[in-house]
Amino acid sequence: MESINYWKNQFEDYLSKRPCEDGSHDLSHFRRVWKIAEGLAEPQDDLLVILAACYFHDFVSYPKNHPKRSQSSVDAAKESAIVLRDMGFPEDKMDAVKHCIEAHSFSANIATQTREAEVVQDADRMESLGAIGLARTFYVAGLMGSHLFDSEDPFAKNRKLDDRSYAIDHFEAKLFKLPGSMKTEKGRAEAKRRAMVLSNYLKDLEAEL
Amino acid sequence: MESINYWKNQFEDYLSKRPCEDGSHDLSHFRRVWKIAEGLAEPQDDLLVILAACYFHDFVSYPKNHPKRSQSSVDAAKESAIVLRDMGFPEDKMDAVKHCIEAHSFSANIATQTREAEVVQDADRMESLGAIGLARTFYVAGLMGSHLFDSEDPFAKNRKLDDRSYAIDHFEAKLFKLPGSMKTEKGRAEAKRRAMVLSNYLKDLEAEL
Repeated sequence: MESINYWKNQFEDYLSKRPCEDGSHDLSHFRRVWKIAEGLAEPQDDLLVILAACYFHDFVSYPKNHPKRSQSSVDAAKESAIVLRDMGFPEDKMDAVKHCIEAHSFSANIATQTREAEVVQDADRMESLGAIGLARTFYVAGLMGSHLFDSEDPFAKNRKLDDRSYAIDHFEAKLFKLPGSMKTEKGRAEAKRRAMVLSNYLKDLEAEL
Repeated sequence: MESINYWKNQFEDYLSKRPCEDGSHDLSHFRRVWKIAEGLAEPQDDLLVILAACYFHDFVSYPKNHPKRSQSSVDAAKESAIVLRDMGFPEDKMDAVKHCIEAHSFSANIATQTREAEVVQDADRMESLGAIGLARTFYVAGLMGSHLFDSEDPFAKNRKLDDRSYAIDHFEAKLFKLPGSMKTEKGRAEAKRRAMVLSNYLKDLEAEL
């Protein structure tokens, strides 16, 4: 644990000095992903690999409408390795960290090959669900200047989903699929609970519209 | 009701052609405020005055960090009157509409002098509460580029509230005060219900952090 705390402080120190204008992918997000990942990890998992990947998984993150969007995680892995090497991070863990970072992304669609990559991916996806996922969904909609919902057909009963234009469409288009994509057992259970927070929210919203 | 439908179509037609980049103050917001106001209105209230004020209350809306912010509603009343006059809106209702628009605003702090102004103010404030208020709060945070919350002290237990910096602070700083500011009886009851949606949300969030 000593080495975990040492590296956590190093990462916090480094990342807190980095400018960040997206409050949905800031240091506080990295901390929460690490906290969730710690809860999903089993004794046999390499916590240092998980820690590094949690803090650096969004080190490069192109905006949702950027042409290189799906390449974010591969570039994040490359750039993180340079920084980690500079910090003196154990070289023998580098490939494992890079794999976790590359495979965490939804849009990259890279299969997870290790337990550590499964834990990091599940932890990051968990952040899109529940109360925090709700906040982040609408926050990102504001950031991108999209609409909250289609006022003619808010729940897309008679049209195709379009989550670039309408925040509410993101629930069906992506969020409700996440519990089924979870790789760890604990992750699946917690994801189901957090998806319920979202579906209850939609019921409240429907009653108000 | 015929005249209400006629004017509603006129307003929809006019406002749908107006560019709007803020999804929390768009035509869909005006429609919802009108729908809520209709529910709060009593038979003796002048529905046409309420309708016009609901559709035009944000006709001028300076951003939250703009020096003229608290003047938005007075300017909105003036500008709306010019447009309404052009449309041939009944001149004898103009002052009543202008008063509703001026008095709806939180930051302008102008006392409501008519039932119609009370209804419009309550209806607009209702939109900051409940499931829709939740969505709008985080959306506006994204739009302004503020943080979701202070990761060291999310619920401001040991610091002053700062809702320009942290979206979650907006709940205590403003939203939970709204039910007590409602002027109509029906408005107060519904506002209390919608405030519960927000406090339940905070409990869910606290459990995740």
